[in-house]
Amino acid sequence: MDVAIIGSPFDTGVSFRAGGRFGPSAIRAASALIRGHNPVLEVNPFQVLSCVDYGDVPIIPGYIERSYEVIERELTPVVEAGVIPLLLGGDHSVTLPHLRATRSVGPVAVIVFDSHTDAWDSFFGEKYNHGTWMRRAIEEGLVDVGHSIEVGLRGSVYGPEDWTMLTDELGLDYIPTVDVLSQGMGATIDRIRSRVGDRPAFISFDIDMVDPAFAPGTGTPEAGGPSSAQALEIVRGLRGIDFVGFDVVEVIPAYDAAEQTSLLAAHLGFEMISLVALRRLEKGRGA
Amino acid sequence: MDVAIIGSPFDTGVSFRAGGRFGPSAIRAASALIRGHNPVLEVNPFQVLSCVDYGDVPIIPGYIERSYEVIERELTPVVEAGVIPLLLGGDHSVTLPHLRATRSVGPVAVIVFDSHTDAWDSFFGEKYNHGTWMRRAIEEGLVDVGHSIEVGLRGSVYGPEDWTMLTDELGLDYIPTVDVLSQGMGATIDRIRSRVGDRPAFISFDIDMVDPAFAPGTGTPEAGGPSSAQALEIVRGLRGIDFVGFDVVEVIPAYDAAEQTSLLAAHLGFEMISLVALRRLEKGRGA
Amino acid sequence: MDVAIIGSPFDTGVSFRAGGRFGPSAIRAASALIRGHNPVLEVNPFQVLSCVDYGDVPIIPGYIERSYEVIERELTPVVEAGVIPLLLGGDHSVTLPHLRATRSVGPVAVIVFDSHTDAWDSFFGEKYNHGTWMRRAIEEGLVDVGHSIEVGLRGSVYGPEDWTMLTDELGLDYIPTVDVLSQGMGATIDRIRSRVGDRPAFISFDIDMVDPAFAPGTGTPEAGGPSSAQALEIVRGLRGIDFVGFDVVEVIPAYDAAEQTSLLAAHLGFEMISLVALRRLEKGRGA
Amino acid sequence: MDVAIIGSPFDTGVSFRAGGRFGPSAIRAASALIRGHNPVLEVNPFQVLSCVDYGDVPIIPGYIERSYEVIERELTPVVEAGVIPLLLGGDHSVTLPHLRATRSVGPVAVIVFDSHTDAWDSFFGEKYNHGTWMRRAIEEGLVDVGHSIEVGLRGSVYGPEDWTMLTDELGLDYIPTVDVLSQGMGATIDRIRSRVGDRPAFISFDIDMVDPAFAPGTGTPEAGGPSSAQALEIVRGLRGIDFVGFDVVEVIPAYDAAEQTSLLAAHLGFEMISLVALRRLEKGRGA
Amino acid sequence: MDVAIIGSPFDTGVSFRAGGRFGPSAIRAASALIRGHNPVLEVNPFQVLSCVDYGDVPIIPGYIERSYEVIERELTPVVEAGVIPLLLGGDHSVTLPHLRATRSVGPVAVIVFDSHTDAWDSFFGEKYNHGTWMRRAIEEGLVDVGHSIEVGLRGSVYGPEDWTMLTDELGLDYIPTVDVLSQGMGATIDRIRSRVGDRPAFISFDIDMVDPAFAPGTGTPEAGGPSSAQALEIVRGLRGIDFVGFDVVEVIPAYDAAEQTSLLAAHLGFEMISLVALRRLEKGRGA
Amino acid sequence: MDVAIIGSPFDTGVSFRAGGRFGPSAIRAASALIRGHNPVLEVNPFQVLSCVDYGDVPIIPGYIERSYEVIERELTPVVEAGVIPLLLGGDHSVTLPHLRATRSVGPVAVIVFDSHTDAWDSFFGEKYNHGTWMRRAIEEGLVDVGHSIEVGLRGSVYGPEDWTMLTDELGLDYIPTVDVLSQGMGATIDRIRSRVGDRPAFISFDIDMVDPAFAPGTGTPEAGGPSSAQALEIVRGLRGIDFVGFDVVEVIPAYDAAEQTSLLAAHLGFEMISLVALRRLEKGRGA
Repeated sequence: MDVAIIGSPFDTGVSFRAGGRFGPSAIRAASALIRGHNPVLEVNPFQVLSCVDYGDVPIIPGYIERSYEVIERELTPVVEAGVIPLLLGGDHSVTLPHLRATRSVGPVAVIVFDSHTDAWDSFFGEKYNHGTWMRRAIEEGLVDVGHSIEVGLRGSVYGPEDWTMLTDELGLDYIPTVDVLSQGMGATIDRIRSRVGDRPAFISFDIDMVDPAFAPGTGTPEAGGPSSAQALEIVRGLRGIDFVGFDVVEVIPAYDAAEQTSLLAAHLGFEMISLVALRRLEKGRGA
Repeated sequence: MDVAIIGSPFDTGVSFRAGGRFGPSAIRAASALIRGHNPVLEVNPFQVLSCVDYGDVPIIPGYIERSYEVIERELTPVVEAGVIPLLLGGDHSVTLPHLRATRSVGPVAVIVFDSHTDAWDSFFGEKYNHGTWMRRAIEEGLVDVGHSIEVGLRGSVYGPEDWTMLTDELGLDYIPTVDVLSQGMGATIDRIRSRVGDRPAFISFDIDMVDPAFAPGTGTPEAGGPSSAQALEIVRGLRGIDFVGFDVVEVIPAYDAAEQTSLLAAHLGFEMISLVALRRLEKGRGA
Repeated sequence: MDVAIIGSPFDTGVSFRAGGRFGPSAIRAASALIRGHNPVLEVNPFQVLSCVDYGDVPIIPGYIERSYEVIERELTPVVEAGVIPLLLGGDHSVTLPHLRATRSVGPVAVIVFDSHTDAWDSFFGEKYNHGTWMRRAIEEGLVDVGHSIEVGLRGSVYGPEDWTMLTDELGLDYIPTVDVLSQGMGATIDRIRSRVGDRPAFISFDIDMVDPAFAPGTGTPEAGGPSSAQALEIVRGLRGIDFVGFDVVEVIPAYDAAEQTSLLAAHLGFEMISLVALRRLEKGRGA
Repeated sequence: MDVAIIGSPFDTGVSFRAGGRFGPSAIRAASALIRGHNPVLEVNPFQVLSCVDYGDVPIIPGYIERSYEVIERELTPVVEAGVIPLLLGGDHSVTLPHLRATRSVGPVAVIVFDSHTDAWDSFFGEKYNHGTWMRRAIEEGLVDVGHSIEVGLRGSVYGPEDWTMLTDELGLDYIPTVDVLSQGMGATIDRIRSRVGDRPAFISFDIDMVDPAFAPGTGTPEAGGPSSAQALEIVRGLRGIDFVGFDVVEVIPAYDAAEQTSLLAAHLGFEMISLVALRRLEKGRGA
Repeated sequence: MDVAIIGSPFDTGVSFRAGGRFGPSAIRAASALIRGHNPVLEVNPFQVLSCVDYGDVPIIPGYIERSYEVIERELTPVVEAGVIPLLLGGDHSVTLPHLRATRSVGPVAVIVFDSHTDAWDSFFGEKYNHGTWMRRAIEEGLVDVGHSIEVGLRGSVYGPEDWTMLTDELGLDYIPTVDVLSQGMGATIDRIRSRVGDRPAFISFDIDMVDPAFAPGTGTPEAGGPSSAQALEIVRGLRGIDFVGFDVVEVIPAYDAAEQTSLLAAHLGFEMISLVALRRLEKGRGA
Repeated sequence: MDVAIIGSPFDTGVSFRAGGRFGPSAIRAASALIRGHNPVLEVNPFQVLSCVDYGDVPIIPGYIERSYEVIERELTPVVEAGVIPLLLGGDHSVTLPHLRATRSVGPVAVIVFDSHTDAWDSFFGEKYNHGTWMRRAIEEGLVDVGHSIEVGLRGSVYGPEDWTMLTDELGLDYIPTVDVLSQGMGATIDRIRSRVGDRPAFISFDIDMVDPAFAPGTGTPEAGGPSSAQALEIVRGLRGIDFVGFDVVEVIPAYDAAEQTSLLAAHLGFEMISLVALRRLEKGRGA
């Protein structure tokens, strides 16, 4: 087994729109339109890798910390067995237990695609939810901070320190959406690649990094983001990196239109698996 | 002050579809279509009563028990001041802290309109959520069990005891939807009235008691329910009862069509306030 | 020519939701599901009558009185030629110029199906809109008041006189929705028939007379109405009456779900045309 | 094995709205809200019967007759093994191959719930589609005509013979919707039961038999039908009949609102399986 | 007081889709996602300025000229008090009374973002509606024509003079969408800035300037527009200009998907207020 | 007569979402927003050309090959009369009979805008559907292969040969979406123009070539495509080519949002007709 697709039908961690609990089933349904071969990356990941759909983690709706325990407990043996999880959210809070499950291979260089930092100390007076997971993960030593980066920040914030603390306080790098768009995808890819280097890496893709026109089905949309094509281009540009985990989160089908958000999420997952397959092939060629 | 309309934008207690947190704002928006006079009950409640919109309780998304504390803390002084709360949910779990806030006037005869009993001992292994609040309220001594009744039960259940325990174990009365429909609204009203008697009473109206054709915007719909007209008829039939609290819950705007569920909820609230006004008038007339 | 189907894509007269301007095209599209024979009334109106679609009246969006002139100017020669118009709205304000066009055959006994009286003296300080047309029509002598009736009133109103003035001040009869439902369709039909008698009659059917579950696509929905089946039953029950005009109004496709409101409107129109055909046949048989 | 739930994601046979190919997956998703015990029929069918989800028949989109062959080929051994299929459509044309698969236990008494007869000789000049399957099935000797009945006919038709030929030409009985509603569900149930008697029977439930307010997600809706509660009541009333097959067809999720049509379809299927379980229990009790 | 947010729930001036009357409430609801600090412009406008929500202007639905009077009457004292209005539409016709209210500080350099010129002499034979306001405003001397510009014109028109008359006849400058996209946002910003210079300026942002993928909830969409990110970039690029008024118009929630149009409108308003705050700060610094 | 707009309300050829049968009526409805003059191409095609709406081809739902015969039979005399058809789909399978109808002026250089090749040998074991028409057309000698090109390929495929066979086996040229976006529209236009040269040419525009954010209403969407503006730019760039036919296909209104897909399709058709008009004018000028 190489890659395990795992649903986390959990949305208790959200602050605004709920409904991500139906994200995994919607993404799976949309994946009916995914065929095996990736013609841009030129690989059929399902011929290279053994991929399995593990079904959903049995989370407890309404209970964050208990659900965290379940997610960590389910994913840890997967990671320890050398399998790469592709977690389908669910709200972004599930990335914390996912990262906890990577202790055997971490700390990991986390590449967060998101319009929000998710690095507040607390939200509504609480330590665990979809606005704080990144800070918690850093505090718990799960993140290889010096090689991690947040990509796509935008929208209004509470204060300038919301962004600057990423660097000043937490030691992360970040690229706002305005810079992604002005410098282009190539430069964005280069910056991510040089940040991550050869560390074991992890992509956490919050679908709200993409503009709401392309991903309306999400919880805290921010106007003015990149297109689907640009998002796919960045992910494809990360070939060669040593990934140990992925997640695609914050898909809320109740706000989607014609399944376009779910379809994009499924396609992003397909690119991620393709990256794993490519690296496997390249290593096999003695690269 | 006589009646306080209070929103509880909380949906952490749900087991299936979330989104009731936007229920209060949707019901308020729909109430733009409510004018002052009730031509069936022949009363203008806003001329008889002083009604205030208290705004929303500052719940903590993702945290049930902390939110319960907030709701109880906000509502208790309202009830103690002799004001009747009309709580707009939010998921049905909020009825528990609402009932806790009625201690000064209780235990109360609870009339639950719902297609579900909400009286399980636990759900997903947890004691506090929208499937257990009724049992908790009984355990906490908040319910005048011998004068309480559940109306509109239907749909599939886990076992026959799901319904029979209401009577056998908890001492409640109940009327399944099939009986409501076969015996008619008049007989249903009579049974509720004779059950409640002259006790201080409380209506908890889960919008899923009404058929999903009339209330599509809800979380755990059950096919085969009464119509809006029938639901309104039953509520209107409860004139004369001594109400000390109301709630209308489980409205989820993301699943609504043309605001019909919100509009029905607003209208149900209007009938409830009208009942209070009528009783006030009748008492004033020396009745 | 016997019947002319005429669209009035006008919604400047509304007080709440606009969009009725697309009603005529939506009703026409839905009429693709109407076949020729009416198996309940046992008549194929298109074999008995010559029916033509006149297209839409060239109204002026944003200008009520100028549009009234256009509608009256277009319909008057139709009525004078002995053709019965079936006007598709558009908001209910268009019934006033429609009635003005019936002067050659009037005053007419108006049967209004509506949850609102539309008989205010003014609305927002203005004399002409969808809340006042009935009073204007009476003032202009277009209505045979003693044989006219409003059916289906419900919802909250501004005061008790909103309904009682219909009788007390205007001389109209009316049946609230609660009475329609409690007495049944048969009694409702009988009361309408005895009210109208053998006068030249006119049906003005506001789709919001039907419950929003059946007709979500409308502008000022009121919870708790009759079903589609009940509405159709009442209209079918009016066979034998001497109709000189019809309208079906307040269909707003932007709020509809799966075209159900448009389909109901198309079906109501089909029943109306069937009534004309039946009467023609019965008269032909020497009745 | 007692009951097999089989999807037929096929909609090539439709004349108006397509999209029934996604019906089976939507009904399955909605069945997440079905629990095991039926409190009205007082049976938990899953404790009495062995029920299996066979997945979907591998139909060929765009090719009716080839798909018919596949459906018949898949279902025949199921029926021959004594298993009762519950086929989830897909458009109504799939009932023909389903009936062909019942040859080993037929001809069967077919109870069709539908607003249309589906008994035309041809449609668009073609013999095989969702408007002709009933006639084809009779011609092929699959239907025990003298014990079969169509329930719920309504809407406009091409001519009076559309309905009368059912009796005159084909020997079927039928009950129009107006009679279902005027005589009540009890009398309707009685008439179906006495028609079917003790023959091996088959229910084909076209969801458009129910009013579009309750079942908007369908292809050829007809205004003015029964409610969900009434439809469920009729099906439940058929206890004791010896069923050998069921289908629930014409669910089109793209036109549904808040999954209410799928949910109703799932519930109808649950009642059907409950009927089988009840009969099994009653026979076991020596009844 | 520095900035007043004022709703104009008016859509009587539209020629195609109506429903902008619900625009202000939808934009306000979407503004729940706007936090205080603008990280791109690096300012928290609410710390610099005093901003107040004035509520809605009491327009008269169905009556354009009377509503114009109300809007002008409400806004004039605001402008005269030195407060900058941010008007939320409503259809674009409301910009005329808004400009009338700026007489004390005008004529103003108007920057119109729109896919249409709105400068016809009449539309449907009428002088006042959403297709003519710009010409009326020029005729009334409200516009500093030589420093005004229309940005984003596209779509089909009635004739070549629809665009060329802007320059030839009215003296305005304009940039079609194809030029905005081919020359880039930077050049577009430069051209606007050099056109406006240091005059008192006014932004009128018709949301249909943005492509319908990003702003589906509008009345006369035109395919092929800029993205949200591009629109936001242009507005942000106007820092330093001396703005005396703003409006964001033509948001129609009934056609929106997942509130994305309302959210974009709220964000555009936030950028506009940020521009005011920045200029205040820069002036305070002696710039 | 110069151009004939012809609807093909056919979707039996689809493999995934159906519903394109309502495409022609939706595109026609959206064309209400198309005015006569094209300000970018600077031509009013309706002043240059005689354009007629032929209505819809009487296809047979559910029957592909019979429908092909009807389409070919209807279109052949149109083409033979020197009229250029603009066919509105319907699914992409209708392009085969359309090409068959061009025999009198072919073989034609086909410019396919599509995210899929539609050149499989068979699909679901069948030769005729929306995944195979291009190969069939080539086999039948209808395509001037050496001057034909497919533009916009993307998404996952079954294997690398899905794309490479276009060149290797069929002799077509193709440009994947990633190349369209990286090289820009200008280079894409140049490559198409040099490929087509001066041959009689044909555009087949599958709306799924555009990103689902801009064209959600389609059957097999692929994330990551060009924008509407980019698609329109490419089509406009083809001025001067000698077109003999066009189609715009795969619009499915049931999945559309606010008619944006239909509007884009209408606009694409308008650009195509404008191209014909421009060429006519240029030839008239002796060019």
